[in-house]
Amino acid sequence: MSKRILTGDTPTGKLHIGHYVGTLANRVKLQNEYETFIILADLHAFTTKVDKPDEIAESTLQVAMDNLAAGLDPAKATIFVESGIPEIYELAAIFSMLVSHNRILRNPTIKDEIVSKGLGDQFSMGLLNYPLFQVADILGVKGTLVPVGVDQLPHLELTNEVVRRFNSMYGNVFDEIEGLVGEVPKLVGTDGSPKMGKSLGNCIYLSDDEETVREKIMGMYTDPNRIHPTDPGKVEGNPVFIYHDAFNPNKEEVADLKARYEKGTVGDVEVKQKLFVAMNGFLTPIRERRKEYEKNPDLVKKILSEGTQKAREVVQGVLVEVKQAMKLTF
Amino acid sequence: MSKRILTGDTPTGKLHIGHYVGTLANRVKLQNEYETFIILADLHAFTTKVDKPDEIAESTLQVAMDNLAAGLDPAKATIFVESGIPEIYELAAIFSMLVSHNRILRNPTIKDEIVSKGLGDQFSMGLLNYPLFQVADILGVKGTLVPVGVDQLPHLELTNEVVRRFNSMYGNVFDEIEGLVGEVPKLVGTDGSPKMGKSLGNCIYLSDDEETVREKIMGMYTDPNRIHPTDPGKVEGNPVFIYHDAFNPNKEEVADLKARYEKGTVGDVEVKQKLFVAMNGFLTPIRERRKEYEKNPDLVKKILSEGTQKAREVVQGVLVEVKQAMKLTF
Repeated sequence: MSKRILTGDTPTGKLHIGHYVGTLANRVKLQNEYETFIILADLHAFTTKVDKPDEIAESTLQVAMDNLAAGLDPAKATIFVESGIPEIYELAAIFSMLVSHNRILRNPTIKDEIVSKGLGDQFSMGLLNYPLFQVADILGVKGTLVPVGVDQLPHLELTNEVVRRFNSMYGNVFDEIEGLVGEVPKLVGTDGSPKMGKSLGNCIYLSDDEETVREKIMGMYTDPNRIHPTDPGKVEGNPVFIYHDAFNPNKEEVADLKARYEKGTVGDVEVKQKLFVAMNGFLTPIRERRKEYEKNPDLVKKILSEGTQKAREVVQGVLVEVKQAMKLTF
Repeated sequence: MSKRILTGDTPTGKLHIGHYVGTLANRVKLQNEYETFIILADLHAFTTKVDKPDEIAESTLQVAMDNLAAGLDPAKATIFVESGIPEIYELAAIFSMLVSHNRILRNPTIKDEIVSKGLGDQFSMGLLNYPLFQVADILGVKGTLVPVGVDQLPHLELTNEVVRRFNSMYGNVFDEIEGLVGEVPKLVGTDGSPKMGKSLGNCIYLSDDEETVREKIMGMYTDPNRIHPTDPGKVEGNPVFIYHDAFNPNKEEVADLKARYEKGTVGDVEVKQKLFVAMNGFLTPIRERRKEYEKNPDLVKKILSEGTQKAREVVQGVLVEVKQAMKLTF
């Protein structure tokens, strides 16, 4: 069987360059090599934003536009909305019979979420069901190759546990899946923080206009120990150079800037201005494609609607197989 | 809004006279007064029988026949199979965002299940999702009146918590529901045990043939302190007289037997023979209807298929309302 990609986003806000580096760039490449399904897991967003339905709806539209702007081509990749496919939740319900409560509580992503958000023992059943929804997202379209960040590998382990348990109990319906970890899984924030996040205010969004990008770059953190342009500076771990490495296609310029920075013969301003030029060169085609979609939200909705219909037919077929294997055939 | 009944069974085995007294008799009556939906919650059965799909499939068919034999009329009541309606599980997934993990762990029925089955901390996510599936079963058809045994009232409380939480967060979509506790909620087993169960071997099934019923009744427990027919016996708590009260329409005969039993002027054999006659009179029309369906399982499947289609259309409408309220409209 040829490999099928399933990947996607939980729409909790617009996507930024960290998402691009971590996953979008990979998706754009993969859509030419594999049958690709991109899920917008809108219901998952309710695990953290249960009282913000308007924000989730808006984010779903924005994230769809970010994906399209980044280069996902609806003629190649199927972009779909999870909540539009009830059969995914029936699969999740079925899989919930095969996975122990303990196993979910041990899931590192869930544990992190509970700790980092200070939820204590106050969290919803939805949070615990979230990994099962992800398993159903993947297996529902019979995804076999899942591009993920390193921190999401545990979800894939759970998927393969379900595959093995299901197959051994009811017969072979699913293939085990493989994770495909991207080359540059994480990008630091503009403040050098290892995590980029809306609440941290350290993101450059794919939808940011030129002036906003300039301001954000000119305000970036560099080497905190360097006071004057004539001080020798540190390149390693310096957010400005991390970004140069990721986004400046002119490798000679980057090498020259690094050398001069370490010697103390270039100022932060020049380094940042050149980063802005590079970043803007990278963002301009994305921004232009995004503008077209922003002008025509109905087109985006049509793409999502058609993608959801197409994905739904696949999931319906998988559910029929699953139910036949389980004798749920009334 | 006129009241709509939702009730049903988890198909884990044929139904017995305890089910009849506790719920079926009530259903047969209610179908003439209210719009009635009867669910066969086949996926729920996997919480305890995950490795027995054939048994669950067979039980689903048997329980459907038991309901029809008891007098449920598919022209009046809609009998449907839960697993045939993916939208129920999407509703449950949505509701899982509104219910805390703690709240589910405190659910007395779940606690009892864990304790009585000795599950310790080894239980599936499906067991914890079970109450959410029940909430979705009820609200999915906008049931407002739910006939239940006393031990199931906690599930209804959970439903109303979901109703209040959903309505306050996303707008009024659901009405609060009412429980309708049957007159004789529990029937003891043939051995006098307060619980009637397949594993206890103390049930008379609606599908038992005449000879089996006779044997079970003649082997029933009575007053353990009464050795001879001439000993005065105890009527209260005596399973034979509990059954006489429930199934013998000849109240004079029952009063006479009780009086003679207390005086020590009637033997167990006569009391049991008369109970058999009464029980058989009760079971014969049920058994005859059941025979017709047993001869024609395709008719039963057709009834379930049509009922499921009808119920599904209702649930689909409810899901649209729910998703509009939550802005999940892509």
